[in-house]
Amino acid sequence: MQNILDKILSGELQLKGLPADRLDQLCAEIRGFLIEHVSRTGGHLSSNLGTVELTVALHRVFTTPQDAIVFDVGHQCYTHKILTGRAGRFDTLRRAGGLSGFPNREESPHDAFIAGHGNTALSAAVGIARAKKLKGEPGTVVAVIGDGAFTGGMVYEGMNNIDTLDNLVVVLNDNKMSISKNVGSVSRYLTSLRTSPSYHTAKHRTEDILDKTPVVGRYIKEALVYSKSVLRRSIYNSTFFEEMGFQYLGPLDGHDLEDLIAAFSSAKEYDSPLFLHIETVKGKGFTPAERNPAAFHGVGAFDTRNLPDPDEPMNDSFSEAMGSTLADFADTDSRVCAVTAAMKYATGLHHFSKKHRDRFFDVGMAEQHAVTFAAGLAVEGMRPLVALYSTFFQRSYDQFIHDVNLQKADVLFAIDRAGLVPGDGETHQGIYDVAFFSQFEDVPLYAPCNYAELRFWLLRLLSPQCSGPRAIRYPKGAECRELAALGCSGEPFDCVLHSGAEAPVALVSYGLLTREALAAGRALTAEGLPVDVYKVTRLNPLPEKLVLLLCAYSRVYTAEDAIVSGSLGAHLGLALQRRDYAGRYRSRGLPAGHIDHAEVPQLQKMYGLDRDGIIKWIKDDGKRG
Amino acid sequence: MQNILDKILSGELQLKGLPADRLDQLCAEIRGFLIEHVSRTGGHLSSNLGTVELTVALHRVFTTPQDAIVFDVGHQCYTHKILTGRAGRFDTLRRAGGLSGFPNREESPHDAFIAGHGNTALSAAVGIARAKKLKGEPGTVVAVIGDGAFTGGMVYEGMNNIDTLDNLVVVLNDNKMSISKNVGSVSRYLTSLRTSPSYHTAKHRTEDILDKTPVVGRYIKEALVYSKSVLRRSIYNSTFFEEMGFQYLGPLDGHDLEDLIAAFSSAKEYDSPLFLHIETVKGKGFTPAERNPAAFHGVGAFDTRNLPDPDEPMNDSFSEAMGSTLADFADTDSRVCAVTAAMKYATGLHHFSKKHRDRFFDVGMAEQHAVTFAAGLAVEGMRPLVALYSTFFQRSYDQFIHDVNLQKADVLFAIDRAGLVPGDGETHQGIYDVAFFSQFEDVPLYAPCNYAELRFWLLRLLSPQCSGPRAIRYPKGAECRELAALGCSGEPFDCVLHSGAEAPVALVSYGLLTREALAAGRALTAEGLPVDVYKVTRLNPLPEKLVLLLCAYSRVYTAEDAIVSGSLGAHLGLALQRRDYAGRYRSRGLPAGHIDHAEVPQLQKMYGLDRDGIIKWIKDDGKRG
Repeated sequence: MQNILDKILSGELQLKGLPADRLDQLCAEIRGFLIEHVSRTGGHLSSNLGTVELTVALHRVFTTPQDAIVFDVGHQCYTHKILTGRAGRFDTLRRAGGLSGFPNREESPHDAFIAGHGNTALSAAVGIARAKKLKGEPGTVVAVIGDGAFTGGMVYEGMNNIDTLDNLVVVLNDNKMSISKNVGSVSRYLTSLRTSPSYHTAKHRTEDILDKTPVVGRYIKEALVYSKSVLRRSIYNSTFFEEMGFQYLGPLDGHDLEDLIAAFSSAKEYDSPLFLHIETVKGKGFTPAERNPAAFHGVGAFDTRNLPDPDEPMNDSFSEAMGSTLADFADTDSRVCAVTAAMKYATGLHHFSKKHRDRFFDVGMAEQHAVTFAAGLAVEGMRPLVALYSTFFQRSYDQFIHDVNLQKADVLFAIDRAGLVPGDGETHQGIYDVAFFSQFEDVPLYAPCNYAELRFWLLRLLSPQCSGPRAIRYPKGAECRELAALGCSGEPFDCVLHSGAEAPVALVSYGLLTREALAAGRALTAEGLPVDVYKVTRLNPLPEKLVLLLCAYSRVYTAEDAIVSGSLGAHLGLALQRRDYAGRYRSRGLPAGHIDHAEVPQLQKMYGLDRDGIIKWIKDDGKRG
Repeated sequence: MQNILDKILSGELQLKGLPADRLDQLCAEIRGFLIEHVSRTGGHLSSNLGTVELTVALHRVFTTPQDAIVFDVGHQCYTHKILTGRAGRFDTLRRAGGLSGFPNREESPHDAFIAGHGNTALSAAVGIARAKKLKGEPGTVVAVIGDGAFTGGMVYEGMNNIDTLDNLVVVLNDNKMSISKNVGSVSRYLTSLRTSPSYHTAKHRTEDILDKTPVVGRYIKEALVYSKSVLRRSIYNSTFFEEMGFQYLGPLDGHDLEDLIAAFSSAKEYDSPLFLHIETVKGKGFTPAERNPAAFHGVGAFDTRNLPDPDEPMNDSFSEAMGSTLADFADTDSRVCAVTAAMKYATGLHHFSKKHRDRFFDVGMAEQHAVTFAAGLAVEGMRPLVALYSTFFQRSYDQFIHDVNLQKADVLFAIDRAGLVPGDGETHQGIYDVAFFSQFEDVPLYAPCNYAELRFWLLRLLSPQCSGPRAIRYPKGAECRELAALGCSGEPFDCVLHSGAEAPVALVSYGLLTREALAAGRALTAEGLPVDVYKVTRLNPLPEKLVLLLCAYSRVYTAEDAIVSGSLGAHLGLALQRRDYAGRYRSRGLPAGHIDHAEVPQLQKMYGLDRDGIIKWIKDDGKRG
């Protein structure tokens, strides 16, 4: 029974014209829609269930695209997508050619700004609001920011630059947690705001009372004189957000439509930026998600009648293999620490945090701090491992260059979600890290293709004979059978397919793509073009012996799921060139830019990196060559 | 008359044993020492004059290296270096083989952490303090952070992670300005703290009075009940720093040794991190520097009796050429905006800010915000230019990838201080930007070698036919006569030396190194090895016509003052390889890591990139080849 939603989607009813007493039903219907669709397609559930009323209220009051809604980490944008003409495409969510799981300007003019990485919304909103002012255009810019984002520094840079933009509204969507449980001082501060008997009420009440207060007695008078500025500040500017130049309003119940709509409607009356602090419940309206929002943060398809056990650990993944190996190793070396940026479970570090609580640090969404903090630990003799997603490691490139590498600090990087990632799309691809690390001639970078290799090289990198900056990268998800079967040789590279005595062609790959390379090599060899297939495990510095071996082939090809520029293909090509290699050299990888959302095998195919793509490439090139 | 300082330096007196009434004289002597030496060597003056008492008080109370002092943007570390055994080397300050102008762990165990980029000290200090706790070691960790650093987000990430570290002290060195005048909400907030009648006093006074207050009258009672939490917060936790978990003490006079020493001495008594807010005067004790601290921020050698006019503009520099060209162009296009991160004068944007105040944005030390803010302006149709030093642009790599490039936002980057920079050393070299931008196949990157080219290509990039992400990079300082004479062809590359009909060797370079390449090419040609010299202006995408031309040479060499990996040399090599170039290809650049502080010509020589180095390289390689 989705009467109202259906009518709104068909254009029969308008959200702005709907009687106020029907809005709650609309929200219930949207929740039903979300659960129904996300259970089929997978996607982000908890955060979207928590922001139904918020989004309905926003669209009730504001009119996009003249007004702009800028989401921070945009995975809570589903209701926004439903209400802006994209409900009919929800069966394609996060699938190739389908709806993106994040805001996307290419997808709709109602999506004001990209949002896959956190902490960016306020800066973007300040830019959009400032541009509107410069152009003399109307419209309010609303940045919707989760409390977790306040653990990341960029939000404060944004706050420092709001100036007097009266067309700017910040909505703090406070659900008391980001993806993992929130950490740190900011989280405590927000709690203090929430637990104050409604700050907003208390403030006005106090002003009211003080206005009426006769000045009685020496003590009170003295108190008022001596502490005037303190009191003033407490009354007029008590919160940090007011100090930053906002009008602060809240905390409000983020599921009370009437309150939300009233607050948004009043936004235009303020002559300075407005900060609306609302409290929401992640997973709201779907009991399993309310009980365990983290388990329903990003989910695969599920059966609403037969839910997966959210406490069951994700045993089968590279992340888990890393986390459990590290936790065990740390039993033997008290200098080993583990640092993560709001990804304790996803990076497998919960094993470590359980066993070595005092040496585990979740710093929030603060990759910059994570890396410099680790360098600080290291210069005092500790041996930290920093586990980050490849795409978020981009946030700490400068901290790596400046604080870690220049000091040769003893920091080991575990780069998770490296290479192509499923579903999330362009903002989450882990395609830059190989080129980044390979810049540094003396920073070892390993790319295991199965758990055995991951464990072997992780332990090697943790061992006392290895020190300084070093890294290991591995993909999201589980190893595959074919690559598990390769085991671990303990060598920096392996010839995984010897096609014959005098093979003219060498094919080089690493990580997950080794499977495709192997399959392509076998097929080509079977067809009469003998191809030797090499799997590289140490991407940086490149094994010199590999370069020497490759010089003997008349044609060398590399395939990798990383950007073409600066990754393995580029470095190997230059290494061959330095040896005046006279054969033919071609490399294939990914563009540095937009990569669609799709499943990994689809993406491999799209970029000619799957078995068939590689076969065709080598055959066609042979014809031309 | 440096009696006390001399005796301390000779070991005859100990700072800790000095009678308290001699400390002021010591500070005066240190000031004399600083002025005398910096006037001879050049260096950072204002910030060091402002922190003499602070540093003396720190070393009076704490004992390095057991206690650790972590400076943020460490150019105010001169007094620290004097007091830790390096006074005798001040004549070598910032010179090749001499004292670094920044803290440097290689230089002294008293330098706890590297500090060339801002905002890092707190994160590093938290790491060091945490490591001490884990190891059960004594010692206090003091982070000295300027108020300007609070415009950068990373400091907030650090604050969010101080936990309950009672061995951590943060000294806010509040001189009411960073390098340029401070901007934004945080600056206003600090002003409000400073102008409160001593907050610390008021707080204790108020507690005292409230303790003695009889509850009188309905109104007061009601006020106390209703606003209890508000009042409590105002009294016990009024400042943001207290909300963040610090004990806040201040503001104190940063030139009052007695107060400073008392405050530092009390640090051990606190059972939580301590935040000491002190006020200092930049340039203190040297009138010209007090009057115009920015002019004496970083200076060359000067004559103390015949001071340079600090208001005289730095007319002759690439930065000025950029700034004035941009300011004039913006007369014709109201969509052009300019964004800088605390470097208005140094980037030449003061021209723009004067002419187009409403479209000029100095966001503070906040490169991340600068870039995403610009993307926000761009998606609304504005055409922002973001001017950053190459080394600080590293802070916004992710914002470029995520917010600018994925959205193809119309943002032009002016990358200043690109290539080798004089004096500052390893933390300030602008050597990564070429490799970074060259990752993106469709992001134009230009490297003009003189003002004429800078103006031509800047205007081209600003013109409506150019859009999307794009960049122009140029060195610190002035053009040289030889390169100015080349003028501007308007072509993406030029053959600047035709040595003859059938030259076997091509030498390729760009930017300032063109001068060395030209000189080397001429010399080699004169010696009988004809060398054609090419100057590339568009580094990305590489001009295809250049690649074709180079295929005709039997040997091709590239020389650049950027990291070897991923810069011009790498891309050109691969482009030749793709064309199955059968000749010899060699490239030379800089390592991605430590590069000493020295003058630029010395650095060029050190890395074989000067005229003689290039000549030797090509000759030797010819013998081997």
